Amino acid sequence: MSNDDRIAILGGTGDQGLGLALRFAKAGRHVVIGSRKEQRAIDAAEAVKKQVPEAHVEGFGNEEAATGPGIVILSVPFEHTASTVKGIRDHLEPGQIVISMGVPLATAIGDGASKLVGVWQGSCAELVAALLPKGVHTVSAFQNVAAHRLQHLEDEVECDVVVSGAKEPRETVMALCELVPGLRGINGGVLANARIVEAWTALMIGVNIRYKVPEGTGFRFTGLD
Amino acid sequence: MSNDDRIAILGGTGDQGLGLALRFAKAGRHVVIGSRKEQRAIDAAEAVKKQVPEAHVEGFGNEEAATGPGIVILSVPFEHTASTVKGIRDHLEPGQIVISMGVPLATAIGDGASKLVGVWQGSCAELVAALLPKGVHTVSAFQNVAAHRLQHLEDEVECDVVVSGAKEPRETVMALCELVPGLRGINGGVLANARIVEAWTALMIGVNIRYKVPEGTGFRFTGLD
Repeated sequence: MSNDDRIAILGGTGDQGLGLALRFAKAGRHVVIGSRKEQRAIDAAEAVKKQVPEAHVEGFGNEEAATGPGIVILSVPFEHTASTVKGIRDHLEPGQIVISMGVPLATAIGDGASKLVGVWQGSCAELVAALLPKGVHTVSAFQNVAAHRLQHLEDEVECDVVVSGAKEPRETVMALCELVPGLRGINGGVLANARIVEAWTALMIGVNIRYKVPEGTGFRFTGLD
Repeated sequence: MSNDDRIAILGGTGDQGLGLALRFAKAGRHVVIGSRKEQRAIDAAEAVKKQVPEAHVEGFGNEEAATGPGIVILSVPFEHTASTVKGIRDHLEPGQIVISMGVPLATAIGDGASKLVGVWQGSCAELVAALLPKGVHTVSAFQNVAAHRLQHLEDEVECDVVVSGAKEPRETVMALCELVPGLRGINGGVLANARIVEAWTALMIGVNIRYKVPEGTGFRFTGLD
């Protein structure tokens, strides 16, 4: 693992990425927001500071943001995943952990958000893993954490996060979940299980629509502990 | 829908089927257990009566068990699904609801229970729907309700049940969930969403193994009501 304890969030200008940036900054972690357009990342960092005045947060272009931090979170729409990874991979070093939180929603091809498209590698996370240099770890997490609930800093998020990947990086990411009040990291086993977790997110989007919960549902495993 | 308010459970001699039989009998419903071997169904009915003395429960061969009841639950291993449906379909009438609770676990091909095999029709539930006569409704439900928790009649089950299918039969099955203390029926939308719910069951089996919870975990959506 890397010793650089910064957390980079690429696509940290979007709803879910910004929500994570707020929560990790609030927990006292040094957060680096990345965007294709540097100015948007700088603006997002300012937005974080407005809500969390003590935040240690900066904004950069994606390449610079991804250079160094022990954790690099990919919070970009699924259809931009491959291009984003290709854009940063030469800047990554062995030991860094890349977190895939993308979901292959059918919105990528103009269809609805409660449906999925198939991914050749099996899942968005496995697509990411296939594109990353050797020694960089891929972990799947955070797909089904509602953006709005992340952004409401005064409330607990109340959601389990299924974390999949190799043991050591998976445990690092499970520990990361505990920084956010109400999140609980669940050992999701091997990276390929991301296929299931990503699909589950589409189901949850359908539930949010049918039950009219625009702020998003979460879920909890029962019977653990 | 059918006016025959009996609930048939084919494969009601297995752990999960027997658990549902116990719960529905306890709730005062007339339960019909079906098995390929009639004697095993009769024995299972006796076992239900031992735990629920007031139970209205009978055992029959699958064909007879499926003839009439408004609800017919398929609780057979995935690899026996097609043959079971083919065996009963000539005995079904329009208006009956068939509940698919099967999961295409890779155990069907000798691999592990936390993995899945692909189903040509998309899911076990859609396979069932493709084989049933016109006018018989297919609903997907109950996949991830732990058998052991169903069988412990003194405890609540504490699990949400995602119910997928056409509106009217889906609502009938959602109401059925409420008969079991701790179960909550969730509107899972169209039948094709069974693909996601079935896969989720494999993930839960993996969680049960990794966290050493032999009696099985459940799950709850958070943020609903």
